[in-house]
Amino acid sequence: MSSLAVHSKKHKVCVVGSGNWGTTIAKVVAENTKQHSDVFEEEVQMWVFEEEYQIPKDSKHYNDETSQPRKLTELINSLHENPKYLPNIPLPHNVVANPDVVDAVKDASILVFNLPHQFIGKTCEQLQGKIVPYARGISCIKGLAVSDKGCELFSESIGEKLGIYCGALSGANIATEVALEKFSETTVAYDPPSMDSQHPTPQGTPHGSHTDLTKLQGEAKGLTGKKLKRTAMPSEYPPLHHKNVKKLFHRPYFHVSLVSDVAGVSLGGALKNIVALAAGFVDGLGWGDNAKAAVMRVGIMEEVKFGKMFFGDSVQTRTFTEESCGVADLITSCSGGRNFRCAKMAVAEGLSIGEIEKRELNGQSLQGTGTAYEVNDFLKKEGKEHEFPLFTAVHSILEGKHKPEEIPQLIDTSKKEE
Amino acid sequence: MSSLAVHSKKHKVCVVGSGNWGTTIAKVVAENTKQHSDVFEEEVQMWVFEEEYQIPKDSKHYNDETSQPRKLTELINSLHENPKYLPNIPLPHNVVANPDVVDAVKDASILVFNLPHQFIGKTCEQLQGKIVPYARGISCIKGLAVSDKGCELFSESIGEKLGIYCGALSGANIATEVALEKFSETTVAYDPPSMDSQHPTPQGTPHGSHTDLTKLQGEAKGLTGKKLKRTAMPSEYPPLHHKNVKKLFHRPYFHVSLVSDVAGVSLGGALKNIVALAAGFVDGLGWGDNAKAAVMRVGIMEEVKFGKMFFGDSVQTRTFTEESCGVADLITSCSGGRNFRCAKMAVAEGLSIGEIEKRELNGQSLQGTGTAYEVNDFLKKEGKEHEFPLFTAVHSILEGKHKPEEIPQLIDTSKKEE
Repeated sequence: MSSLAVHSKKHKVCVVGSGNWGTTIAKVVAENTKQHSDVFEEEVQMWVFEEEYQIPKDSKHYNDETSQPRKLTELINSLHENPKYLPNIPLPHNVVANPDVVDAVKDASILVFNLPHQFIGKTCEQLQGKIVPYARGISCIKGLAVSDKGCELFSESIGEKLGIYCGALSGANIATEVALEKFSETTVAYDPPSMDSQHPTPQGTPHGSHTDLTKLQGEAKGLTGKKLKRTAMPSEYPPLHHKNVKKLFHRPYFHVSLVSDVAGVSLGGALKNIVALAAGFVDGLGWGDNAKAAVMRVGIMEEVKFGKMFFGDSVQTRTFTEESCGVADLITSCSGGRNFRCAKMAVAEGLSIGEIEKRELNGQSLQGTGTAYEVNDFLKKEGKEHEFPLFTAVHSILEGKHKPEEIPQLIDTSKKEE
Repeated sequence: MSSLAVHSKKHKVCVVGSGNWGTTIAKVVAENTKQHSDVFEEEVQMWVFEEEYQIPKDSKHYNDETSQPRKLTELINSLHENPKYLPNIPLPHNVVANPDVVDAVKDASILVFNLPHQFIGKTCEQLQGKIVPYARGISCIKGLAVSDKGCELFSESIGEKLGIYCGALSGANIATEVALEKFSETTVAYDPPSMDSQHPTPQGTPHGSHTDLTKLQGEAKGLTGKKLKRTAMPSEYPPLHHKNVKKLFHRPYFHVSLVSDVAGVSLGGALKNIVALAAGFVDGLGWGDNAKAAVMRVGIMEEVKFGKMFFGDSVQTRTFTEESCGVADLITSCSGGRNFRCAKMAVAEGLSIGEIEKRELNGQSLQGTGTAYEVNDFLKKEGKEHEFPLFTAVHSILEGKHKPEEIPQLIDTSKKEE
């Protein structure tokens, strides 16, 4: 018996966001909805922040029709390419660009969030009450919101704002490389409320029958133990267990591993930037690959400690030490990433990170320095600075209070043991 | 009460081997025996395979006395430097070079093995019956002996040949960098027979009194469950628990982590070379840092699986994923290591590894190719090739049966899951 016979509905997918990474994920997802058309509707809606775009004269797409600025959504839907944010990558024809976010998410049971983090708040406001109540989200947004209220994951804040469960996708991925189908891996954390699996699969539910949504409402537990109102996924849909979620993202060139640890998956992608600065400092001293590898190893272990200390028991060590979102993403960031390269330059040339940011990034700030300061503020408030000697060392080097040469001494825990 | 008052004897240390790495470890150990003179005798014996050595004319040590070839041990002991194998690094004066291996190990309660693996057999034969029966060993020799009999760790074969317990030291270490006191980390596995801690500490044993050794004899369990005859460490000595073993190796520039998993510590240093070839293949294709990080991650997980499958329950995942001997050593090998570089060149230039070995290494073989073949032979015999898709892919690429481009497909486990 095929899944189709059992489940009268298929999952409709919307990608919320269409930058470099958003468009890439829409491509990946659309290839999969086509391949697994027993589980998913083929068409994938992609919300595009509408803008006028002028195709450059040297583009293969430049012709009479495109000689004037045109709407980006129209260009994407006629060229099957995002000429502004992912040029020269053909998109599957089942990716449909939509400038109206409310229309894009209509009836979507799966929302893939992939937009710059500063737009999360406003976009979620627009979506409140406009999505189906049993929709499920996956956030592909790396980073961490640190404020007076503490550390918040983007998947958490999306889930809270929309009243839905939201998982996370993160890994050693550079959008352009994934778009070019160069091999990489990623990790998807998805641990939906248990209510999703508590009602039996309807055997032969008549197609088109309507589920009484009030019967599907209940309480689920958030990461921090907070009780959240949630609506269960109706049983007309194929279940969103790990196997089906994997079908949405796994490609021959993009290997997906499914876990349940949403906090762990999200934290690796944010905290690695602090570690990349430390690795850059040490490499800038000319201390060689082993010193750099040591700092990376210590960094992974501090990521684990941070996750367990502040995000509770659901955080697993192995998310950081065994998954793409942890160790692999860290390795990549400490190879050629911007944080690593700038920190290395700063030490090698005897300049401050600020001076390097000015020269190399037109004064734009590195993600790592921002995260290092935010995390340090947070640790200071919690009285836990000394328990994270590497994170704290990076902060005090940025502050000019310590020198990179002092890292080994700052992270040497053997004194404490005696 | 100081330890001295409690224990009438101190540990005498001998480093068996004096190459690049052996001399470096002797330097580290001698610095520590001096610092922790309550636990260790200051003098560290270092066995040197005697040879005549001619100081080069441009050396600062060249003078009337050294204008003729001289014995290496004499040079080491007068110059306090190993001019042949670790030139320009001053050694502490408490390192004493000794050309007579039997004399060097006399009364030593701690034997640090650090010599080329091909000399293990013969050296152990010379030592049989010549060491104190309660001596404890630490092997710093990386690699794995794969033969018809199976996979054997060097620490295991040393322990068996000498009838003593032998732990292991391995990490992301390059001898010259450690010798220059550039920062790195290492892992020491030490899990001595339980009999060592089963007899009480003698309070006020008169100095010079002799322990009845026959009372200290008993059985211990080897890694593979084999019963081994062992002699307990007499209680006149400070106990060799993790804290004291750490004191022997930990330096401000050489951070030591102690574990009990001897097999895990030893395996990482051998199997990483196969993974480094895979990383080189992928990097040679120009697939970018993420593809390389993915292959490294898969490699670590196959190392874990190999350890658990063939070396039993004492093998811990975290030895590979959290320790210097695992993840950090792998990162270093996949950064600038010889296996990585040659594999990358081969793919980038469209040559075979054999051709690269001929051109770059004067026909010398890479460690990784040897290990890849040996491990494959072993896996084939065990019928487990398919459970190690990355190790097997490396072997079949070396054999010309597959191309590096096929790695993602060869390691894609999603087909199996369906």
